[in-house]
Amino acid sequence: MTTNVQKTARNGVNVDALLGARAALTQAPEAAQFKWRASSEWLAGTHSRTTIDGFFGLGSEQKHRQSFQYDTDHPEIFASEDNAPTPVEFILVGLAGCLSAGIAAVAQTRNIQLRSVKATLEGGMDIQGILGIDEKVRNGFDGIKVHYDIDADATPEQIAALVAQSQKRSAVFDIVTNPTDVHVTVSKA
Amino acid sequence: MTTNVQKTARNGVNVDALLGARAALTQAPEAAQFKWRASSEWLAGTHSRTTIDGFFGLGSEQKHRQSFQYDTDHPEIFASEDNAPTPVEFILVGLAGCLSAGIAAVAQTRNIQLRSVKATLEGGMDIQGILGIDEKVRNGFDGIKVHYDIDADATPEQIAALVAQSQKRSAVFDIVTNPTDVHVTVSKA
Repeated sequence: MTTNVQKTARNGVNVDALLGARAALTQAPEAAQFKWRASSEWLAGTHSRTTIDGFFGLGSEQKHRQSFQYDTDHPEIFASEDNAPTPVEFILVGLAGCLSAGIAAVAQTRNIQLRSVKATLEGGMDIQGILGIDEKVRNGFDGIKVHYDIDADATPEQIAALVAQSQKRSAVFDIVTNPTDVHVTVSKA
Repeated sequence: MTTNVQKTARNGVNVDALLGARAALTQAPEAAQFKWRASSEWLAGTHSRTTIDGFFGLGSEQKHRQSFQYDTDHPEIFASEDNAPTPVEFILVGLAGCLSAGIAAVAQTRNIQLRSVKATLEGGMDIQGILGIDEKVRNGFDGIKVHYDIDADATPEQIAALVAQSQKRSAVFDIVTNPTDVHVTVSKA
């Protein structure tokens, strides 16, 4: 008699719940309409503070378990106080977090045990754009390089496939690589 | 005898230094090449931690005054632990911080005293995209609305012009509204 024991990966992602949500939202697509929110307050100079608290989804108002606040500023070499990272560095935070969450979710679905997932990110920028020196230079990143080092019970090809699938389903990867309309309005307080 | 006293706005932005940097970098454009960096580590499930520390600019390695760490996670309604905001909410943090810093810099240049600058941001998202339910639905935001309430020594038209000029020179506004190439590589650790 032979016993075949199939190991189950434990990456901390509840795949059954995600598949359940997928099935439920396929039947009720209106519940899939989310609104993510932030509110910000200028402190002084280039220093601002943004609060993340509630959002809308599954048809009703939702709250994070707690409220979160993040400061942004410019560095001393821009004649600012460097109280916090620059706004563009927060784009890298979002990109890293989104791709890594996706890698974990895809690994769990494919029953691949992850041991460590580390990434380094680098966004190039020619600041002649934001300084208005050269109109041909864009304000944002001229490109972003992301490198993952992943230790997992899988072949290099399977690991590369995890990252590729994560890119395919990543919200932030989409936001950065494709255009999104931003509509800005102003009132005098 | 009449004395004309021209009030100088105090918004905490060193415009002279910025104009000096603009002049210097016009002569030495190679110093305008920046690299913004982040490194991230997966903790468990959809929970990761990203560190912001050094960057490259003005021809050499630079350090923030301190290192910063930011966690990202998914909320409980996604069967996650909600240890931190979602990655997409960090895009809103970056957008708010970038536009607000720009408003302060432009106000200072135009000698407009700001008293308060508050913004609310909302990014819509149909999560049928990230769940892979409908291939026609994008993964990222279907659009972002930003509303500024600004109290300043200026007319509503002048205030609206501050925001418009900030959008024109904002790195994050550019990153969100235009495509940026993201190149991802992977190594097995």
